[in-house]
Formats: sequence, C-alpha cells, structure tokens
Amino acid sequence: MNTFGRIYRLTTFGESHGEAIGGIIDGCPAGIELDFEQIQYELDRRKPGQSKIVTQRKESDKVQFLSGIFEGKTTGTPIGFVIPNENQKSKDYAHIEEAFRPSHADFTYQKKYGIRDYRGGGRSSARETANWVVAGAIAKQLLKDIEINAFVSSVGNLFLEKPYQALDFSKTESNMVRCPDEEVAAQMIEKIEKIRKAGDTIGGTITCVLKNVPIGLGEPVFDKLHARLGQAMLSINAVKGFEYGSGFCGAKMKGSEHNDLFNSDGTTISNLSGGIQGGISNGMDIYFRVAFKPVATIMQEQETINSKGEIVKMQGKGRHDPCVVPRAVPIVEALAAMVLADFKSLRPSDEI
Amino acid sequence: MNTFGRIYRLTTFGESHGEAIGGIIDGCPAGIELDFEQIQYELDRRKPGQSKIVTQRKESDKVQFLSGIFEGKTTGTPIGFVIPNENQKSKDYAHIEEAFRPSHADFTYQKKYGIRDYRGGGRSSARETANWVVAGAIAKQLLKDIEINAFVSSVGNLFLEKPYQALDFSKTESNMVRCPDEEVAAQMIEKIEKIRKAGDTIGGTITCVLKNVPIGLGEPVFDKLHARLGQAMLSINAVKGFEYGSGFCGAKMKGSEHNDLFNSDGTTISNLSGGIQGGISNGMDIYFRVAFKPVATIMQEQETINSKGEIVKMQGKGRHDPCVVPRAVPIVEALAAMVLADFKSLRPSDEI
Amino acid sequence: MNTFGRIYRLTTFGESHGEAIGGIIDGCPAGIELDFEQIQYELDRRKPGQSKIVTQRKESDKVQFLSGIFEGKTTGTPIGFVIPNENQKSKDYAHIEEAFRPSHADFTYQKKYGIRDYRGGGRSSARETANWVVAGAIAKQLLKDIEINAFVSSVGNLFLEKPYQALDFSKTESNMVRCPDEEVAAQMIEKIEKIRKAGDTIGGTITCVLKNVPIGLGEPVFDKLHARLGQAMLSINAVKGFEYGSGFCGAKMKGSEHNDLFNSDGTTISNLSGGIQGGISNGMDIYFRVAFKPVATIMQEQETINSKGEIVKMQGKGRHDPCVVPRAVPIVEALAAMVLADFKSLRPSDEI
Amino acid sequence: MNTFGRIYRLTTFGESHGEAIGGIIDGCPAGIELDFEQIQYELDRRKPGQSKIVTQRKESDKVQFLSGIFEGKTTGTPIGFVIPNENQKSKDYAHIEEAFRPSHADFTYQKKYGIRDYRGGGRSSARETANWVVAGAIAKQLLKDIEINAFVSSVGNLFLEKPYQALDFSKTESNMVRCPDEEVAAQMIEKIEKIRKAGDTIGGTITCVLKNVPIGLGEPVFDKLHARLGQAMLSINAVKGFEYGSGFCGAKMKGSEHNDLFNSDGTTISNLSGGIQGGISNGMDIYFRVAFKPVATIMQEQETINSKGEIVKMQGKGRHDPCVVPRAVPIVEALAAMVLADFKSLRPSDEI
Repeated sequence: MNTFGRIYRLTTFGESHGEAIGGIIDGCPAGIELDFEQIQYELDRRKPGQSKIVTQRKESDKVQFLSGIFEGKTTGTPIGFVIPNENQKSKDYAHIEEAFRPSHADFTYQKKYGIRDYRGGGRSSARETANWVVAGAIAKQLLKDIEINAFVSSVGNLFLEKPYQALDFSKTESNMVRCPDEEVAAQMIEKIEKIRKAGDTIGGTITCVLKNVPIGLGEPVFDKLHARLGQAMLSINAVKGFEYGSGFCGAKMKGSEHNDLFNSDGTTISNLSGGIQGGISNGMDIYFRVAFKPVATIMQEQETINSKGEIVKMQGKGRHDPCVVPRAVPIVEALAAMVLADFKSLRPSDEI
Repeated sequence: MNTFGRIYRLTTFGESHGEAIGGIIDGCPAGIELDFEQIQYELDRRKPGQSKIVTQRKESDKVQFLSGIFEGKTTGTPIGFVIPNENQKSKDYAHIEEAFRPSHADFTYQKKYGIRDYRGGGRSSARETANWVVAGAIAKQLLKDIEINAFVSSVGNLFLEKPYQALDFSKTESNMVRCPDEEVAAQMIEKIEKIRKAGDTIGGTITCVLKNVPIGLGEPVFDKLHARLGQAMLSINAVKGFEYGSGFCGAKMKGSEHNDLFNSDGTTISNLSGGIQGGISNGMDIYFRVAFKPVATIMQEQETINSKGEIVKMQGKGRHDPCVVPRAVPIVEALAAMVLADFKSLRPSDEI
Repeated sequence: MNTFGRIYRLTTFGESHGEAIGGIIDGCPAGIELDFEQIQYELDRRKPGQSKIVTQRKESDKVQFLSGIFEGKTTGTPIGFVIPNENQKSKDYAHIEEAFRPSHADFTYQKKYGIRDYRGGGRSSARETANWVVAGAIAKQLLKDIEINAFVSSVGNLFLEKPYQALDFSKTESNMVRCPDEEVAAQMIEKIEKIRKAGDTIGGTITCVLKNVPIGLGEPVFDKLHARLGQAMLSINAVKGFEYGSGFCGAKMKGSEHNDLFNSDGTTISNLSGGIQGGISNGMDIYFRVAFKPVATIMQEQETINSKGEIVKMQGKGRHDPCVVPRAVPIVEALAAMVLADFKSLRPSDEI
Repeated sequence: MNTFGRIYRLTTFGESHGEAIGGIIDGCPAGIELDFEQIQYELDRRKPGQSKIVTQRKESDKVQFLSGIFEGKTTGTPIGFVIPNENQKSKDYAHIEEAFRPSHADFTYQKKYGIRDYRGGGRSSARETANWVVAGAIAKQLLKDIEINAFVSSVGNLFLEKPYQALDFSKTESNMVRCPDEEVAAQMIEKIEKIRKAGDTIGGTITCVLKNVPIGLGEPVFDKLHARLGQAMLSINAVKGFEYGSGFCGAKMKGSEHNDLFNSDGTTISNLSGGIQGGISNGMDIYFRVAFKPVATIMQEQETINSKGEIVKMQGKGRHDPCVVPRAVPIVEALAAMVLADFKSLRPSDEI
C-alpha cells in the first residue's frame, strides 16, 4: 500500500516526527551516472523554510543513499535512502494529543488504526513527499529528453490567465511562489503574505506541462496514462481535483469544437486532448491541472472535539504553510516523472 | 494491465466488434446469493438503444456466467462471464480502415501496437464498460448498506445547480438523461436532441454520492480512497477530470472557510472534505464529480489523415451517442462500487 | 489470486463441471502471427481420453478465442478464450456430495468457503490446467529460440536413469507415457496398466530441460528464475516437490565437487547449478525435476467422513488417471514457457 | 522485484559491503506491542561469528527501527528499518574484482547489469537475509498460536533419521548446528569441522514444521500455500530444492498407500499430504524440507576466468561458512512466518 509504480517503483516509510523518513526505489536501470547535486536541488525546492511564504520549520532534508549505487552509478539493485528528521518540535503538538484537528487526518487515523502518532500528523504529514522528490529526481535523470515543468497557476481567486504556451518556464524558479509570470507572481506573493498575517491559509492550483513525451506511453483500459497521472496527483496531501487537456471546460464543449484535427505529420492542430488519446500519449504536449485546498492548520482559534467527544478550543501553534502550492511544484513534477519512468520501463507492445 | 483492483479484482477482455467481451471477477466472497435480475438491470441502464438520446446501436447485452456460481450462490472461485457482441456492423467502419478519426485512439493504438482492430475502435471502445457494469453490479450486492447514487449534473453549459442534498435520487431513472431534477432533465434532453440533430455531440458531468460508507476505508499515501476513485473514473472513456468534496472550488477558498468543524459525535458540520480525510473515509457522505468531453465521432464532415499521412475527408457514419453522460451514470456507479468493495476486502488495520 | 505472471499474465476461471473454463492472457506482444494448430496440438497432448493409460473422460478441449486477435495476429490487447466443458458426468459425483474424498481438496474447500461445487472437485480439478496449456502454447510461440522439453523421468520406483543429455527428446511423443527412452517407456506403461487394473494409482516425476535460454533472465532476491519456476510447478495439482540443477543430491555434496568451473567463453564445464546463478540464467541448460504424488481417487473402497463427521464408505466411480505424469508433461512445459515469457517481457536491466 | 508478500509485505535493499541493509514492512496491523529483544534474538541466531562452525565475519547486526512504531506499538504505518554494515573487509574481495567466482552470481550479475558491486557479491550476498529475519520475527509475533520450528535434518550424507514427531524442538538451539537430536548434532558438528579444516564446504537440508496453522490458509490455483512456501524457500541463497509432505518419496508411492484417511473430527490418520490439500491448510502439521548446496567459496585454489575471458587462478580468502544450514534455520522460519502472516491477512473467503 506504500508502494507506487509497477516497474519503476517507490516504497516509502516515515512519520514527520520519527527519526527519519526514507524509501526504496526498485526498477531503476543499471549503469546510470547519477547527478546527486540535482537530486538535492529538487529536495531544496520542496524543503520547509526556503522563503517567507512557506512554513518556517527548518529541515536540511539531506538525503543519504544506502545502496544500489556503486562508484557513482546505479547498479540495477534497489536504491535505499533515508532523510533524517532534524527539527521535529514535538512539543508543538502536545496540545493536539487529545484533540482532533478539523479537516486533518487525525480522526480517521485514530478510527482506522485505534492508535496514532499524534506528533505532527505522523504518516499523514506532507513530509512524506520528500521521499517522492528523491525518486522523482532520479526518474527525471532517466528521462533526459522529456521536459517536465510545473508551476503555480492560481492562488485563491488570483489566476495566471495566460496559456502555458506563452510562458517562459525558466522563470518559474525566479520567484518564491513559483509562477513563471513575474507580475502575477508578485500579486500571488502579496496575497499569501496577507493571508499568512491573518493567521489563515489559502488554496491554489498547479499546472504541469510534459513536453517531448514519446508516442505510445500508457496502457488502455485501467492503466491509462492520465489515470495514473491522476492517481499520482490525488495522492498529494490537500489535492481535491485533477483535470488534463480541456478538463472540466471540455465538459461544456461540442464535439465539433473539441476535436483535435490532424496535421499530415500526425501532430494535431489544436490539443484539447492534452497529449493523450485512449490513454496513450500521442506525442503532443501533455498538460494537466491539480487543485489544492487551503491548509487545514490555521493560526486562528477553532472549536473541535477530543477523543472523548468533548468540544475543546484549539489554536494552531506549529509552523505551517499559509499556501501549499509553491512547495508542491517539485512534488507534482516528481510524481509525473515517476509515472513516465514507470510506463517507459515497459517494453514496446510489439516486443518481448 | 487489464486488471482493476487488488482483492476484489476484475480482469477484462474484448473488442467492440469481436465475438464477445467478458471478464473474470476474482476475490468475490463465497456464499453470496446473487440477484441476477439486478445485474441485468444495471446492464440495461448502460446498453445502447435504450432511448432516443443515445446511440441506436442494438445490443441485448445479456451476460452469461460461466463459473464461480453454484446453485445461485458464489463459491469464492473466480466468476467468469461473457457478453456476446450481436450487432457489430463492421461495414460502418470500413471507411476508417485507413483514416485516423480525430480525437480517437486510432492513431495512438496504431503507433503503439503497429496493428489495430479498426472495427469500431476495438479495445478502446466504450463497449468494454459493460464488463465493468457486471462487476460493479455484483460489488453493489456485497455493499448492501452503502448507497451509491450517480446522476447527470450538467450537459454542456446547462447545470443542475441544486446541492445534492436537495435532490431525490429515486427520480434519476425517471427520465432518459438521468438527472433527478425533472425540470432540468427536460432541458437537458431538449439540448441533447438539438445537438444530435445538428450531427454534433456535447460534453457533460456526472456527480456521484456515496452514503453510509463505513469509517476507515482507504489507505494513506498511495492508495488513498479518493485517489483510487479518481483513477477509476479517469479510466472511463472520454473523462477529462475528477474532483471530490470542494474540488477545484476548494482551491479558491481560505482555510478558515474550508475547514469542516466537528460535532461532538465525530460527524462534521460542513463537509467540504467530501467524506475523506487523509485518504480515509470519515463516515460523512463521499461525493465527487466527473467531467466528460463531447464524443469525438460527429456526423459532420471533418478533415483528417490516413496512415500514409494524406489529408482525407471523413464523416461519421456509425451509430454514436450525441452525449455520453446518460449512459455513463451506471458506469460511474459500478466503478465506485468496485473501489469500495476492494477496500472493504482488506481487513481492519488492527487485525491479521 | 487466479492470476499468474507479472507482464505476460494469465488470469483464469472455471470448474470442471461448469459450462466452460477459460482465461485472459494479458501482456502478449502485438503483431505475432499465431499458429492455432500448434495451440490445439498442445491441448491434445493434455486432454483426457488420449490413450489407455489416462482417464477415459472424453473432452474435445477445443479452445475458442474471443478477443485480442485480428486477422490471425495478436493485437496487443488481452486474449480472452474459453474451453467448453462437454462431458461432465455430474452424476458420477452424486455419491460424494456429502462425503469428503481422502487427500482431495473437498474438506479444505468446504471449510474455507463454507460451500463447494462438489461436482468433480470444482475449481480444484486439474481441468484448470487446460487453461495453462493455452497460455503456455502462445508463450512458446513467443520464445522461438528456446527449446522446452519435459518428459516422464520416473513412475513409482521405475526411473529413467540416463542423464538427459543422452536422450532424444524427439521420441518423447512416440509413446503414450511420454518417456523418451522407449525401453523404459514400455516398462512404465506396463506398470501403469497393472496399477490401473488393480484400481490403484501411482506417482511419478517429470524432468524438464530448457535450452538456449538467454543469459540474464530472472531477478535477484525474491523473483529468482528458479523460485518462479518452483512456484509454477508447485501450482500443478498433485505436485509435492521441485528441485533444479543438483537439487536434493547437491545437499550431500562438497563445494569442491559441486562448483561449476568456467570455460574461457563463459560457459561452464559442469552444470550442477542447473543454468541459474544467483537467480539469473547463465546461458547453460536449465533443468529441473517435479515430483507428483499418486492420484487420490482410487477405484478401491476407502473409509472417509461426510460433512456430519460420520464415517462412510466410498469407492471412486469417476474416470480418473491411474498416473498423472503422462498428461502433466505438456503442463510442465506450458508453465515453464509462461515463466520465461514473463521474465523476457522485462527490459534488460540497463534500459528504460 | 525486491518485494515479498501481498498484504504483509517486505521490500528490501542493501549490499553486503555498502553502508547498510534494510527494509520496509508494510501491512503490519496496528496496535501490536513488539518484543524487540525477541527480534534481536532471531537476528543473533542468523548472524555471523556466532560459533566456530560458521563464518568468522563479525557483525553485530543491530536493527534500528525508523518508523511505524510509536510508544512500543505498531501504528499500522510502514515499519522502516536499517541494519548497518560494520565489518565489511572490502580488501578481502580486491582479488575478485576481475575474476568471476565459480558457481557464484558474479558472472550473471555482470552480464545482466553490465556493472556489479564486486565487494562480497553485493546484492547476491546472503547478508540480505538479515532483513528477512527482521520481518519474519515480527510476523512470528503476529502468529502467536502457530509454532514454527525449523532444524537441520542433514549435513552431507549424515541424516537425522528420526521422524520429526520424535524430536524435542526445544533442543534445537542447544547446539551450534541446530539439530534437535544431540547425538546426531555432535556428528554433524564434527563433520563440518573436518570440512572446514580441509578448506572445503558441504551442503545440507533443513526441515521445518508448522503446528497449529488454522484451517483455510492458502488460495487455490496459483497461490497455493505450498507454492508460496516453495517460492519463499527457493529465494534463499544456495537452495536447490523444496518438498513438502511426502515430497519426492510420494512420487514412488501408490494412491492406496498415500491417501490420508479421515478421523471423524476432520483430522487425518496419516499426514503424507503435509497439512495442505488443494493448496489450502487442513489443520494438520505442515512440514517441508529444503535442500542447500555447498557454499561455493572454498579455501582451495580453483581455476576460473576474468572479465576478459582469461583463465586465472583464484583462492577464497574471505570469511565464509563451511556449511550454510546452521545459520539458515532462522531464515527458513522467518520466511515461513512471513508467508503465513500474509495469507492470514486475507479475510476469510465468505466475508468482505
């Protein structure tokens, strides 16, 4: 249940306030010379404390590889890794030992397991996603020709209206909110700052574009490429929705408007399909959008219940993100890379 | 790749214009007395030719069970079944042997496999979903206490605006578009009729509500209940998006608005979470929405290319749905039932 | 649970006395021109009634393919097939409705499922293996360069003492017991005839040799090539043991005797390893041996119990094999082919 | 590929000469109070350097748990653990960087992966089995009522002839060879000592007995209980064969001799079936036997080839076991426990 992927597979462990989190990457081909700085760079994009608009929890998030790599190259054996937890202020959570935080997993974990590690959400913490970033960073290195670019496309009601084709993805990292349009980025940052000061949080969306995906990835029926991408994105904490290509807008359209007519080289004139037909990539850009709800932990007093069903007052005291989307950009990319690496690991359908 | 589920599992086969489609249901418990009329009823809800707003292709869609049932009861062994194809007018498709239909899977199948059964899309046809309805109908019988109600919530720009709590689901089957509000239903039917006469098609959305789901279904991290539901829905032909609870709207909200505060009995006052916290059901209603693009086959002339890359003209001649959502309602329910049956088949987390 | 393999996968259904058995082969590459006569030939090798030393139950065992094949070639989509049951004399089994046959699965099925299809053992019948032969026959066609030869190497205490290198496998099919040494074959047939006339049954062993297996098949640790072969063989009805290479004899040897020294081309002088090192094929012949217990249904009176725990007398009345190994030869080959096809479907370990 | 089990699952990583080995146990139920001393005790039974008849390599084999346990109890989340490698004398292996050791995995790894960690066999080292012992020790704690007893039943030609029913398993740990008959144990130890002094190695067998296994574990067809046990045992380094119940002897017997007649309570008078009928446990003792070849690394000069195909002389210099079976006893038990825990995690077949 804690395994993702079929051939290129990640299995993970770890709670936010235990000794370490980590994972095992199976199915990575042999002989790949890994760029460890690039892996750490991706972790740094996700890590807490990187800017004023994210949680101030401090973690260096240094990954340690324990196996599967010899003289800098992968050996084809499983890659075990750990990321120590350094700054787990468990006392921040003492006040929630008994109380269930609204819209958190506290209640469901307690009911499902009859026990829970109440320090920071335990396994339900987004800290787990650091493991995914490691596996995704390696997957990216296996997919050299494919470009994977995610970016923040909305914060609350503030939308990046330009089509992705008009954006310069090299600017995504130029600002702390990870929106490639600098003007909109500045507005988003201002909005998040305001929300943070009010002790509140806000939702947002991330758009991701996959370029140069070879034709033929994805399996019909139950392992459609977009179904696997959707499952992956819906695994990220706080995600409430996924759409690709025309998405929910497509549901308002007519077939005569929506169909992507072919050019003679097999590319299509429009791309409302989002680069996938019948679950299989068609060589056009794949793009999708992911909706994140606002972080549930707010710095305002809320009423809630404790395990005895008594109404208690609670105020968030930990160090939490006012808006999750800036840090979620590398997570979206990592999962997309893992899905693509997994499908690429399957042979072409006319070979054995 | 043609298998869905982990314990309650369906494996399928079949092309729309072969001899039969069918499947194998594994993991069904023993000793269940099956209601075969109910299974056929679900198939009849999905089958073509049932009303003037769906495809006029005629199939009786009679399922034949070949194993796993003895004296009317399941035996715990795999349930094999076939649904013969009766009315495959392959000549309708002779004109597309060479041409790739725009926004269909023709092109990607040809490129992926180097061969394709061009009669009606072969494996990519939505005929496959009849198999799912069989497995879903049996899953429903395993989940007696859970109510699963899907309905059409929009056709094109025409939305059913009422919250689902205000609807009477017993009316969903009272009209051919499967919208439980009769007034809106009449408008939807009129709209689809108009679209059909214009030789065009139109998209729509389906909303599904799951009531009385026990607390504790779903697994954290990669097998979150909503991630599995999302993957399931994204497996349906023509689906472009999935959202649950507050969905894409939630991405515009603040935490102070979005949090679902607890009642003292563990239920919540609001339910923007959509009945799932941290991937695990919390006992509240689960609800989600699925976006369907317009059917790609339109009765208008379109330009496309053939396998030599030559531009050719093509006009849809088969019998196709002007709008897919009325027939997709039982499919959405079937997949939801299969996902729930699969998760229910796992033991509670404190048992072995 | 009724699925075998990871990429080249067979999922099956069917009871011996239901309407049909059948299966779905997933992961078969596209564009393979199938030799249907060869598939039927393999089924005929397994089918009952083929000679006087096997059960006289008559089944034509004609396989019908329902999908996945178009104009004689595989399309890469799942291959669904059924084999109708023709000659199910259920009345032969009326006497065992209540009684548990000794050393059969009657008792364990009843206890596990609380219900059982008592007609001929239901799912536990070896009739299921006809499904495997279909999938194995197709797997053989995917493995054109690999030679797979199984043969009967003992019946009771009568052993084929010659090393396999001294045998002419083209003679295996020349006699009804499927032993390539005609002299020993004659003795085996005589022995089985005698056993049959006494209303008894007898065990035996099958040896299987795989030649020209490419270097590198198999995965270290849990998916060792021999572990998968062992699991496969232990899935066959009546199998009690599996050994490969030196097998149980190797447990008596010293390292200085057992090591296979290399030739300069990477082949080895001896081959006590049985063609597999560390779970991975090394290019030498793979050979293994499978032990079958005597068939439990004997034509002699035995005491047993019924479902009320009462001691009852029972005498086998059906048509059963006095010795299972002659008909098990194609089954062993089929499973070996499926295992090899599955491992070959994985990419080389240095590719993605 | 580095994952074992379906519900109670172990995924592992690690090379013998890397920084650490370790694994992730998924599917362990919540709320189990773990006995950590017992886990370490099992590791100590397997660890090198424990007596004069095993390798003198020194490893403390202290397991560190990183997640999944809170206040001494399992939480239902994955249990991550590492076992640091302490005493990896890589220089012992400098001489084999180029040469392929006969009957080792050096050659096949090099051919399969194009790269290998030549220090001590890397992933193919039996050091991996320490991970299994951890997962098996926890599985044993989940199976409190089941008794799992493995013991050495032969070393070379020296056999423990007594039936297992005549043995006192409490004596298995009383001697360093782990044979519960003290007289035979003394002979075995003497034999191994002699072999060791000659710089040679010797094979052996282990028998394992599982008592109080509940009726109904195991799945028909491909997941038969004995097929999973067989696959597990064949995953252990150096194993060449597996048999259960009557095993290879059963292949010599007649049905009239072999059938296990019932007592009126559903137990059987004899138990040649080995506690499993049709792949499902019947409540009688399960017993099986595992054959281990002699360790390939001998302290004698052997000829072999290097990666250029040149013949070179080689002499084992590391610290290796003269006979692997004494240390393999806890490994056999661990895997048996994991298989049983996995099957017990499936619901009874008449429940959902």
